[in-house]
This record gives sequence, structure tokens and C-alpha cells, in this order.
Amino acid sequence: MGDSPWPLSDKACIVGIGESQYWKHGGATESAFRLACRAILAACEDAGLKQQEIDGLVGYIRERTGIEKLAAGFGIRNLRFANSWSGGGGGVAAVAMNAAMAVASGAANYVVCYRAICQGQQPRLGQARPDPVAADSDAFSWPWGLLSPAQGMALKVRRYMYETGTTREDFAPIALACYAHAQRNRRAIMYGHPLTLEQYLDSRVIVDPLHLFDCCLESDGAVAFIVTTAERARALKQTPVYMMSAVQGSDMRSEHVASPNMPNFASSNFRTIAPELWARAGITAKDVDTAQIYETFVPLVLMALEDFGFCARGEGKDFVKGTRLFWPDGDLPLNTSGGNLAEAYIHGLELVNEAVRQMRGTSTCQVTGAEISLVVGGPGSHLLSAMLLRR
Amino acid sequence: MGDSPWPLSDKACIVGIGESQYWKHGGATESAFRLACRAILAACEDAGLKQQEIDGLVGYIRERTGIEKLAAGFGIRNLRFANSWSGGGGGVAAVAMNAAMAVASGAANYVVCYRAICQGQQPRLGQARPDPVAADSDAFSWPWGLLSPAQGMALKVRRYMYETGTTREDFAPIALACYAHAQRNRRAIMYGHPLTLEQYLDSRVIVDPLHLFDCCLESDGAVAFIVTTAERARALKQTPVYMMSAVQGSDMRSEHVASPNMPNFASSNFRTIAPELWARAGITAKDVDTAQIYETFVPLVLMALEDFGFCARGEGKDFVKGTRLFWPDGDLPLNTSGGNLAEAYIHGLELVNEAVRQMRGTSTCQVTGAEISLVVGGPGSHLLSAMLLRR
Repeated sequence: MGDSPWPLSDKACIVGIGESQYWKHGGATESAFRLACRAILAACEDAGLKQQEIDGLVGYIRERTGIEKLAAGFGIRNLRFANSWSGGGGGVAAVAMNAAMAVASGAANYVVCYRAICQGQQPRLGQARPDPVAADSDAFSWPWGLLSPAQGMALKVRRYMYETGTTREDFAPIALACYAHAQRNRRAIMYGHPLTLEQYLDSRVIVDPLHLFDCCLESDGAVAFIVTTAERARALKQTPVYMMSAVQGSDMRSEHVASPNMPNFASSNFRTIAPELWARAGITAKDVDTAQIYETFVPLVLMALEDFGFCARGEGKDFVKGTRLFWPDGDLPLNTSGGNLAEAYIHGLELVNEAVRQMRGTSTCQVTGAEISLVVGGPGSHLLSAMLLRR
Repeated sequence: MGDSPWPLSDKACIVGIGESQYWKHGGATESAFRLACRAILAACEDAGLKQQEIDGLVGYIRERTGIEKLAAGFGIRNLRFANSWSGGGGGVAAVAMNAAMAVASGAANYVVCYRAICQGQQPRLGQARPDPVAADSDAFSWPWGLLSPAQGMALKVRRYMYETGTTREDFAPIALACYAHAQRNRRAIMYGHPLTLEQYLDSRVIVDPLHLFDCCLESDGAVAFIVTTAERARALKQTPVYMMSAVQGSDMRSEHVASPNMPNFASSNFRTIAPELWARAGITAKDVDTAQIYETFVPLVLMALEDFGFCARGEGKDFVKGTRLFWPDGDLPLNTSGGNLAEAYIHGLELVNEAVRQMRGTSTCQVTGAEISLVVGGPGSHLLSAMLLRR
């Protein structure tokens, strides 16, 4: 059942990263399309590629900047891979995984993964959907008020707290680490806005037990990175960052943001998926030097640390205590750019670029001698992914 | 630039096919979700697989039956591949290609490709979109009335007719062949409703030069097929049908259904894509025994035949003359189930199942000794794909 090395291990690399400026939602002065173009051009420049050399694009199903429009805009003569991740923020690593499949099988040579969000120009991702019809199984959750991601996640988190005795104080180090790291990163929207424990605890309720600083930013901006084969990577400008392994998928009965009849309801939804990430790479959680974990909702990061085997179930609260997640003293610096919480929320794709910077040695919170970086997309979401990058 | 054999050639197989009943739009008595389930269960039964063995699902960005809901409904313990095609009907072969990448790289073992449409329960695909905002480059086409697929395609077709001297009569054999083949297929919505040349020519204008019988049906129904590795296929019920080669992508500046500043405007948009299909398989158009070509708009099939090298540019009208496209006498029987025009329009995915039946020897218009089948998705669309299946 796949408990074996990944056939694509170290065969695909991330060779270029780029992003637009980041703003609070509504702050962007250009369209999402233009920001996507800027991020992709920056990634090409970073890689030392001409934009016309791109022959694959990977987006998201809810992306409003269409692949065909970007391909036309860049004058790509023959696009050869046009792919979309089927979920939301859980796709942070899946888009890279799909790009790796494409380059490894010769479908395309240089594949761009991208996400552009202008939450001031489009329906906000965090809001209840305006669809008037609750079709199919949504008919069993929407009428109970489970409309927005936060509403669904709150149920999961409350149940987890009940089962494990975890408190709001226990989640705090995650939020505080993200904010602390953002203070060194001038791209971060929360640069210059440090967060204290008191502010975290006293912030207003969004959906109990989630408070303001448990929830990510709503941002405008765009992120892109470029995947190619290890062979082609050698001819490019940057030292390549290798994909050791990747996984994507979903746990059983994970059909909503909160599916109460899941066997693993009070979890990050990674319980059945995470083991294969380690098996495919042939390493364990102990080998990871830095983790970039999608923290749209802070408590889900703690739950993910358990499901990825950093500690046992229920022991997350002890694992994250103290300075462990904080650069430079901790042994697992988390979201070293500030993450979704304090850098920007570009559906989490900005976490990949930070993982690449760590492997290149260019983060503003650089982990000395970092060799392996974990990237986790969308804990708690219905469709998820994760990957391991190495220097 | 990829003019070499496909590394996945003959490594992935289609091992199961299934579909729901087909209805004219609005005729379905169940939801699209239930029809998708029926099609997938039928494909599992056909393959000899338990539904819980599925560990990958590939859909479309506009699909309303979410992958996570199907995975939950089928009780899949650990979904390992969740992917979407980024375009529309051009994805007929791309979904299979993506599934092939997944099984070949060990991402998943049994990947279902599916499409469910109930045009009576959702916004109709053929209609102008209700979006009030024409963003980005749409701002340069929508105000001129290029809102629906038919409106855009009509421009391409008219230009093609002008450049090549092709007339409406020249397109007729394509529509007549589809209808003729549907008369032997009891699944076909147009079973029992033959079409004459006079009816084709005299039908009402939809968007000049496209008349009623140039445009596909609007249907309710669902289609599914299952992809696995050649190795796993050997243990299953059916004789596997091998994927020889596949391509996906888009031609230059193909950002709308009709992008007037394309270098290859008056074409099927396959001019830069088709050559790689043959190169990857190491065969030519002459080797094909039957073709299933997405005929949402009849004239685009003729244009695709040229772009795929069955004949030279402008010679399509001579190539399709007489009985060539008609079973049993023609040497290139087209859409032997009736296709989008006369069987059902399930975004073209039903064409893949017919290609599989031809390779198995079970079509109702079975081509004697057929060994190779061409499947072409969405000629004229902005994002496209094609594949070659072999017995």
C-alpha cells in the first residue's frame, strides 16, 4: 500500500521562488492577475529562466487567475501541463507533487505552481458561502451553522481540547512563534506588530474556542515557485532544493471541514496520510530541521505535530512548551517567515517559498545548517498534502 | 522539447468503465452526486474492484460533485490522489494522463476519472455566464458578445470557412456519422432519432455559421473510468486497454474560446500539441483504427482532423467526404457511440469509455480488428488534451 520509497524522490527540484508584495485584504493596488504575473516573473528571474520557457502551470480549483490567461500573457508557445489542486489550502504540497509528476514523466520541463489572492476583489475565503442551495451532504451540516471554515474547525478543536485536556494557553506558543519570526521579515504584513501572550489570550472570540489570533490573516498577494527535474536544475542559477517525498489525499469520511462521523474527528486529518510521507522519504520526524505548517487555525498545528509523529497523541501541549518552536533557540523553528498568521495568507503557498529559503540558507530566521524542511498544507481540511524538502 | 517516446507509454491502463443512464437536460431523476456514484460503482464492477480499493480521484475544476464527498461516500480509508483538470471539455484525455502519472509514480494504485453533469440542476454549460464582472482579458471579449462557447467558436469556424473554402455541406458527414452510430447504441439519447442531410442543413441557426445539429446535446448523466498500472491490471477482470501516449496543454495565446490574436486562430488549437502525441507513441495518424473526437461543435472535428495530420490544412472537406467516418465501411469510424452529438454530452468523458469498448471489441459499432483508438478532447477550447489507446 505504498509504504515504500517514493519513485520520484530527489528527481524533482524547486529552482525558483517569487512573490508579489503582500497587503491586508483590500490593500492591493493591482488585480490578482497582475500580482500572479509579478510572482511568476520573480520566480523566473530567481531561477534564471525566461518566462517563455515555462511549459506547465499548476493552480487551484478556486483560483480566479486562469492558467490559460497566464500562458497567453507570458507568450508561452505550447503549454504542456495544466493542472489544478482539487481542494483549498491543503494543497500547499500537492501542487508541487503534481508538478514533480509532470516533470518526471516528461509531460513538461518547467512547471510553475502559483496562487493569487485578492480578498478585497473577490468573495472572502473565510466567509460563509453565499450559495443558496446546500446540496448533497452539505444539507446535513449547513443548516446547523457550519458554513465557514472557522465554524467547522471550532468543533474539531473543542473536541480535541476535551479529549486531551489541552487549553488555550497550550496553543499560544504556536501563534507567538509565528509573530516573533515575522518581526525579522520585512515582507510580513505583521512586521513591526509583535504579539504578546496577553494579547493572544485576551483577543476577541471568532468562533469559540477560536479567538482572533488563532485565525490567519486575510491578505492580498501572489506566490509562485518553479519545479523541474534534478537534471535540468543543474543548469540553472540557484542551488536546487530537492523534493524528498510528498503525499496528498484525505482521511476517511473527511467530506466537510468538520465531518463529525470521521473515525479520526478530533485530529488534523493527517492520521492516515502522514506515515506515508516518512516512509516515502525513509526518515522520521526527528530528522526535520524546520517545519512550515499551514496555520490558518493555530490549534490545528498542534494537532498536526502529533499526527506527524513529533510526539504522541495528547502530548502536543508539552511538545510545544517553551522555546522549541522559536528561532534561534528551538530545535523545531516553526513558520520562520511568520506564516499565514503574520507574514501573509496566500492560501499557504508562501510557506513553500520559506521552506525553500531555509534550504538555501537565506531565511531571515535561518536555521543554522538546516538540511530538511517539512511543509504541511491545511491541517483539518478535507483534502490535504505535505512534503519534505532537502538541501 | 519532448519529441521523444512517452516515459509512461503502456505503463498505465484503463481497466474499468461505467456510466449512469443518460437523459436530455433536466431529465435526471437523481442528483448529480448519485449519478457520479452510480457511474463509479459500475466502473468498479466492470474492473472487478471493490469501491474501497479506489485511492485516487480525478475530476474537473467545474465539477460540482466534490472528490472529498465521493471518497467519503465510498468509505475510502485513505485517499492518496485528488486532482482536477483545469479546463473544460478539453480534459477528456488529460484526466486519464494525470491518473497515469499518479499510478506510475506510486501516488495511488487505482485512480477513478469521473464527470457528472445534470444540466437541469445547475447553470448550463452552454449558456453565457452570469458573472457580472468581466475581469482581466475577458474585458476585451465579453463586451462584444463573446459570452458562450458557441459565440466564440462561431468566429473560429467562419474564419476557417473563409480561409479554406469549406462549406456547411462539407461538415455534414461528421454530424451524420455520429447520428448513424447512435442508432445502434441503446444508451444514446438520440437512439431512434436518425438525422438526414436535409435536416442537418435546414436546422435553425444557433450562432452563425453554427446551426442546431452542429452543437452537442445538453444532457444529464455521469461517466467514470479507472486507471491503474499495467502490472496491477493483469490481476483484474478485463483485458487492459493501454495508454500509448497522451498530451495536454494549449496553443499560443489561447486564452478564450476564441482568441482572435492567436497565430493559429482558424484551427482546432491542436496545431502545436498534436505532433507530440504521435512522437510520444511512435506512430502516425495512418495507424489509427477509430477516432473519438469531442464534437461539441461539428466543424471543429474537421479542423482537428487536419491538425492531427489525417490530411493537410484545407483538405478536411475532401478527407471526410463519402463513407470514411461511417461504420462499418469507413476506414476511420468516428464517435462510434454517437458522441456528444447523439449519445450524450457528459463533457466528452463518455468518448473515453467508447474508445475502451473499441479496444475491448465490445462497441455496438465495433471496428473489426481495431487496435488503436484516438481520443481527442475539446478542439477549439483554450485547454486541450488527446491520447492514444491500444488493445
